[in-house]
Amino acid sequence: MTLASGRSHIAIPGPSVIPDAVLQAMHRPAPDIYDADLLAMVQGMIPDLKQVAQTDQHVAIYISNGHGAWEASLANTVAPGETVLVPTCGRFGHGWAEVARGLGIKVDILEHGRQTPIDPDRVRAALLADSAQAIKAILAVHVDTSSSVRSDIMALRRVLEETGHPALLMADCVASLGCDAFRMDAWGADVTVSACQKGLMTPPGLGLVFFNERAAEVQRAMPAVSNYWNWQPRAHPELFYQYFGGTAPTHHLYGLRAALDMMKAEGMEAIWSRHARLARAIWAAVEHWGQDGPMRLNIADPAHRSHAVTALSLGKGQGDRLRAWCRDEAGVTLGIGLGVEDPEDPTASGYFRIGHMGHVNAHMILGLLGVIEAGLGALDIPHRAGGVAAAASSLSAR
Amino acid sequence: MTLASGRSHIAIPGPSVIPDAVLQAMHRPAPDIYDADLLAMVQGMIPDLKQVAQTDQHVAIYISNGHGAWEASLANTVAPGETVLVPTCGRFGHGWAEVARGLGIKVDILEHGRQTPIDPDRVRAALLADSAQAIKAILAVHVDTSSSVRSDIMALRRVLEETGHPALLMADCVASLGCDAFRMDAWGADVTVSACQKGLMTPPGLGLVFFNERAAEVQRAMPAVSNYWNWQPRAHPELFYQYFGGTAPTHHLYGLRAALDMMKAEGMEAIWSRHARLARAIWAAVEHWGQDGPMRLNIADPAHRSHAVTALSLGKGQGDRLRAWCRDEAGVTLGIGLGVEDPEDPTASGYFRIGHMGHVNAHMILGLLGVIEAGLGALDIPHRAGGVAAAASSLSAR
Amino acid sequence: MTLASGRSHIAIPGPSVIPDAVLQAMHRPAPDIYDADLLAMVQGMIPDLKQVAQTDQHVAIYISNGHGAWEASLANTVAPGETVLVPTCGRFGHGWAEVARGLGIKVDILEHGRQTPIDPDRVRAALLADSAQAIKAILAVHVDTSSSVRSDIMALRRVLEETGHPALLMADCVASLGCDAFRMDAWGADVTVSACQKGLMTPPGLGLVFFNERAAEVQRAMPAVSNYWNWQPRAHPELFYQYFGGTAPTHHLYGLRAALDMMKAEGMEAIWSRHARLARAIWAAVEHWGQDGPMRLNIADPAHRSHAVTALSLGKGQGDRLRAWCRDEAGVTLGIGLGVEDPEDPTASGYFRIGHMGHVNAHMILGLLGVIEAGLGALDIPHRAGGVAAAASSLSAR
Amino acid sequence: MTLASGRSHIAIPGPSVIPDAVLQAMHRPAPDIYDADLLAMVQGMIPDLKQVAQTDQHVAIYISNGHGAWEASLANTVAPGETVLVPTCGRFGHGWAEVARGLGIKVDILEHGRQTPIDPDRVRAALLADSAQAIKAILAVHVDTSSSVRSDIMALRRVLEETGHPALLMADCVASLGCDAFRMDAWGADVTVSACQKGLMTPPGLGLVFFNERAAEVQRAMPAVSNYWNWQPRAHPELFYQYFGGTAPTHHLYGLRAALDMMKAEGMEAIWSRHARLARAIWAAVEHWGQDGPMRLNIADPAHRSHAVTALSLGKGQGDRLRAWCRDEAGVTLGIGLGVEDPEDPTASGYFRIGHMGHVNAHMILGLLGVIEAGLGALDIPHRAGGVAAAASSLSAR
Repeated sequence: MTLASGRSHIAIPGPSVIPDAVLQAMHRPAPDIYDADLLAMVQGMIPDLKQVAQTDQHVAIYISNGHGAWEASLANTVAPGETVLVPTCGRFGHGWAEVARGLGIKVDILEHGRQTPIDPDRVRAALLADSAQAIKAILAVHVDTSSSVRSDIMALRRVLEETGHPALLMADCVASLGCDAFRMDAWGADVTVSACQKGLMTPPGLGLVFFNERAAEVQRAMPAVSNYWNWQPRAHPELFYQYFGGTAPTHHLYGLRAALDMMKAEGMEAIWSRHARLARAIWAAVEHWGQDGPMRLNIADPAHRSHAVTALSLGKGQGDRLRAWCRDEAGVTLGIGLGVEDPEDPTASGYFRIGHMGHVNAHMILGLLGVIEAGLGALDIPHRAGGVAAAASSLSAR
Repeated sequence: MTLASGRSHIAIPGPSVIPDAVLQAMHRPAPDIYDADLLAMVQGMIPDLKQVAQTDQHVAIYISNGHGAWEASLANTVAPGETVLVPTCGRFGHGWAEVARGLGIKVDILEHGRQTPIDPDRVRAALLADSAQAIKAILAVHVDTSSSVRSDIMALRRVLEETGHPALLMADCVASLGCDAFRMDAWGADVTVSACQKGLMTPPGLGLVFFNERAAEVQRAMPAVSNYWNWQPRAHPELFYQYFGGTAPTHHLYGLRAALDMMKAEGMEAIWSRHARLARAIWAAVEHWGQDGPMRLNIADPAHRSHAVTALSLGKGQGDRLRAWCRDEAGVTLGIGLGVEDPEDPTASGYFRIGHMGHVNAHMILGLLGVIEAGLGALDIPHRAGGVAAAASSLSAR
Repeated sequence: MTLASGRSHIAIPGPSVIPDAVLQAMHRPAPDIYDADLLAMVQGMIPDLKQVAQTDQHVAIYISNGHGAWEASLANTVAPGETVLVPTCGRFGHGWAEVARGLGIKVDILEHGRQTPIDPDRVRAALLADSAQAIKAILAVHVDTSSSVRSDIMALRRVLEETGHPALLMADCVASLGCDAFRMDAWGADVTVSACQKGLMTPPGLGLVFFNERAAEVQRAMPAVSNYWNWQPRAHPELFYQYFGGTAPTHHLYGLRAALDMMKAEGMEAIWSRHARLARAIWAAVEHWGQDGPMRLNIADPAHRSHAVTALSLGKGQGDRLRAWCRDEAGVTLGIGLGVEDPEDPTASGYFRIGHMGHVNAHMILGLLGVIEAGLGALDIPHRAGGVAAAASSLSAR
Repeated sequence: MTLASGRSHIAIPGPSVIPDAVLQAMHRPAPDIYDADLLAMVQGMIPDLKQVAQTDQHVAIYISNGHGAWEASLANTVAPGETVLVPTCGRFGHGWAEVARGLGIKVDILEHGRQTPIDPDRVRAALLADSAQAIKAILAVHVDTSSSVRSDIMALRRVLEETGHPALLMADCVASLGCDAFRMDAWGADVTVSACQKGLMTPPGLGLVFFNERAAEVQRAMPAVSNYWNWQPRAHPELFYQYFGGTAPTHHLYGLRAALDMMKAEGMEAIWSRHARLARAIWAAVEHWGQDGPMRLNIADPAHRSHAVTALSLGKGQGDRLRAWCRDEAGVTLGIGLGVEDPEDPTASGYFRIGHMGHVNAHMILGLLGVIEAGLGALDIPHRAGGVAAAASSLSAR
């Protein structure tokens, strides 16, 4: 027998838990794609999406995943042969760089490992060294889902201002949007890339590229942008189909509309605050367990930890055991370790991640922490008992 | 801001959490009620329902709630003017008695308060005192949802055997079926009453009456049984519509079929064991908190506690405060106190109940315990911190 | 290969087609049955239900099917040993009579066959013959689903007035409510019985009994009414659970709420008019086909035909062939002949029925008529071609 | 009042009617994207997709719409500066050409108007004139959704063989796949482009590119292919995420799996035959109406008409009136005229289209034809009455 027979909880760092309201909104017949209601619904989503990214600028919606949105962001701004600077703090920074290379773009990697955020000083140095101003853009991942490190986007804008370098500042907010606070305009991101399946709580299938006027100017100067990736008609369509460069992703739109309704009702500040408090509860539990055992948060400094995803280590083999127990005995699916390069643990069997993004509340998080504590006990993995209680205590405080 | 924005968890003692598979099965067009597939599906459900109640005898399905099933059980077995013995351990024993009275049946109540199970000795005494054998049936609630006390049905059968009294033994398993172990045939219940919205995980709308051959004989001797309540054609229909005394409850049947599929896959022993382990985890938490505070389980002896529902007290006003906090701040709905007669707390504001019946796993239960612990802290209600950790620890052990 | 692979259309006379909005409303988690929102929703449904029956009086909702509502209507008004007059025009009149007998009520049947409506003169004669005024109630089926005959309820009220007989006038509107015009108060019905799975477009599971003050008085004088059937607390509950004599049928309520929203938006007059026009289109088709073939409407006089269901005959064996073809080759399920007593066709193989109740529009009806015409052709059943065109033409006119 | 209150029928040429089974399959929680079940499900879909296109070669699935699949097909095969030959028979041929131009590809249009299929002789002439063999590929739309003309793909392969020209033969089967017979391997298409929202009955969001070994060779010789469009890892992934170039479109996959299950159960020959018979029924109706009125099929020769979509004309203004009547009065949404260039009718108000693709059966098609006939009558648009009866008659024959 197992204790798993009940509602499963998925705590992988995306796709995240989908609200009933979103699934329900998607359970409907095909609409007439020339109907005025559908047009009005999409028009109304645009300001709501911008609100989520805290921007007054432009947004293009792509039928794609986050990788597609990466390609879209670059196809509009950086021509083959041009150069981007990519400070990396995990696998997803490298992923964006690979997409750039696939487009014929030259890539300068600033490797930061996977336990520290982007260092503005190293970026400054790279910009200062670029006397020819060859760097067309900086590709900065706000939260790298693999390492759970969060970097300071505003600090990069300051570095650009200080150095007077004209490079675009492009932020990947796939993991962070709608979870960790992000203020595109205030922080000076020129382009923001995201997708719908994490903080936006919608099944995977939509990519988002927000861009400001400065990026739009760069785009207009590009030698060529393919029709599908061209953000101009998507952001400023004359006809409905141009929003999506062809047939609209009707059911995803109904789902995303429902998700945006929920987000609007809660408010961005409240959403960010909820994620922050729940993240702190997770950290409290892990730090408690770790006092008498091997469990460790990947990111030492709380200021650099994401509020949406947490990467951890537990010792070779133990991560896989714990994940299997939680899933098979208790109904919780944890995420695998990703982007780990540990020569002693080539399959990352001692690593795992917790997703806590989007549609998550105290019950879900305390439940998963309780399950982890039960699993540590069941598997005889050393830990100081009481982590889940420490988490509950952290949520008692306002 | 609140920490409640996420998937809500309902922990009231019924209706219980409905599995996605059940809701999905109900989301379908109206079928042809003369179709062979529907007939075959219903025929196939009968043995599966009997398996849940551990009986080889008969079952009648009613479109009704549990109160309707109560009325059905009596309408088939006890004529107006006849007598039933009702040992009560909570409000639902009294409820069944009221239904009997509404049918013109005489009711002898054996009041047990709400903190102890049915005392077989008191029942024996009542039977022995009934030299005229006027008592037609004993109405015994297996688990009283209001008090969470569980009584020993088999012990009542033994008393009947010892005294040689011919009364029928009728068990109310509305709260317990599919949660607490129950073996109709082995324990000697003649009639078992239940409903679909608790351990059977289906939205309210179906009542169930299981009956054995002995009860069937009594029924055949009844002066009159109304068509709707008559269990004979429902249990042994010649035409499909007789299963339901008219139009079939098509969508509930699809839902119940899905629930039975899940129960069959898990197995009754595993289901009971899961409920038992989760109940013990809840008790461990409450007993831990209670060491330094007012929280108390209603039933002192673990052997008499239900594995499906737990009634608690927390001190006047505090139950209501805790329920409000859990719902508004953390996404968990606890049950109200029911059937409490506390002159110092006329609105039962210091009482509450936890439902842990049906579709529940370790994640859900540890989550709700974590939320209660966070709530106790947030509301400054005295408690020894660490109850949720005690619960997790209890689940670590097999 | 078949032409059936597509969205099936069910044209049986109940359960009827369920709107997506109703199914969607039912696809939701279990609610807290003590929550204020649920209470408010149910309170709000009461006036909307009364509006459907065109009454300002009372309504009791039962978790049951129509047979249960029949039993409820009688259990509240006619005591065992009392007498009811039942003018029958099809199987459902006899069904209600059987339920009365099951309650120990004496039944006087006025058999009308199955092709003519209730004859007010025969009822008058029966009332005049009842000098002892033993008849407690007249049970009149408004539309008998088996024969599709519609009787004149108001004419029966006039007869009661003329004769000064105090019998209650009870109308069965299971098949007609929300389809054929019905005005409970204006027509003088004292009790109206219905269910949710036809004009109310909700999966089977709810019975409805509307009653006026006169019936309420009769009820208060009854020697006994069982708790489950007692309409008084259901119509005038002090506590929420009394609406349903126990646990609320939560998901059916959400579904019915959605259906009532649709009905309110359309308006009762528009709903009745839609059904009338669609019924006339069906009659036009059948009368056209019948000019050169055996197909006949069961009811000769259009004034006595229901707008919700149509019974037809086609010649021995041909009804079954046609139904099989429509289902297997074209995606349409027609209803079987019911209540037919044809010595030459003991299995009613030459009879069938069309349901056109509730969620039906021009597309659905013209599609099923087109399919019938195609089937007649495919099966070489004689008919004058063009019935479906006659139906289309009838819908062209306002 | 209207006759539209019922289940609406959408008869636009895509997105098409979505089966309940597909919507239900999509109504489920987020899965673990590293779970073995999901991997197995996707692996199992590949052969089933190939079966739909009748190919043993390769398939790449894109999160995109059909426009994205167009771009994918070209990004893998034709480099900027290279040339494609595009014989056009409607707007979608021009659409594909525009996408080619957006990629920097030179486009030779062979304009065929919008009432005749691609003329193999004109293609032969163009190939013969291309002595330098500059034409890298022929972009041929199998069924142009705007004009409903169907071209002969196999004839183009023969022309390529006769001329010995090495150009790739690329077919757009967005509108035809799963509706009109198409045999990729037997007909010699090197690349086939499609999408999921028409014959594949799934909400828009997936593009498909099938390609053979010859096209794969061309691809390997391309100077560069961007990561998102690169079909090689998608068709031959080493890791699960490579199927989709990033996060999997989980819910679309569940939906498509359900659609493929239905298609497999019915069989491709049966599916094509069903579409053919239903199309002929539509033509029979229109030709009948047109005998005494202005309604005309856009394509005169039945051999060149699609079985999935039908374009019609009705006279200036009348198309718009008819569409409005069908939608508002009868519950049927017809498609607008698209790609029409009529100087006397600049808004194409006299044109409309009927979609009859995917999840369509006799009931749905006869219903929409009945509605059109009713609308013609209601709007006093001249027509010979009886078109819907002619359609029914056509379906009577095997």
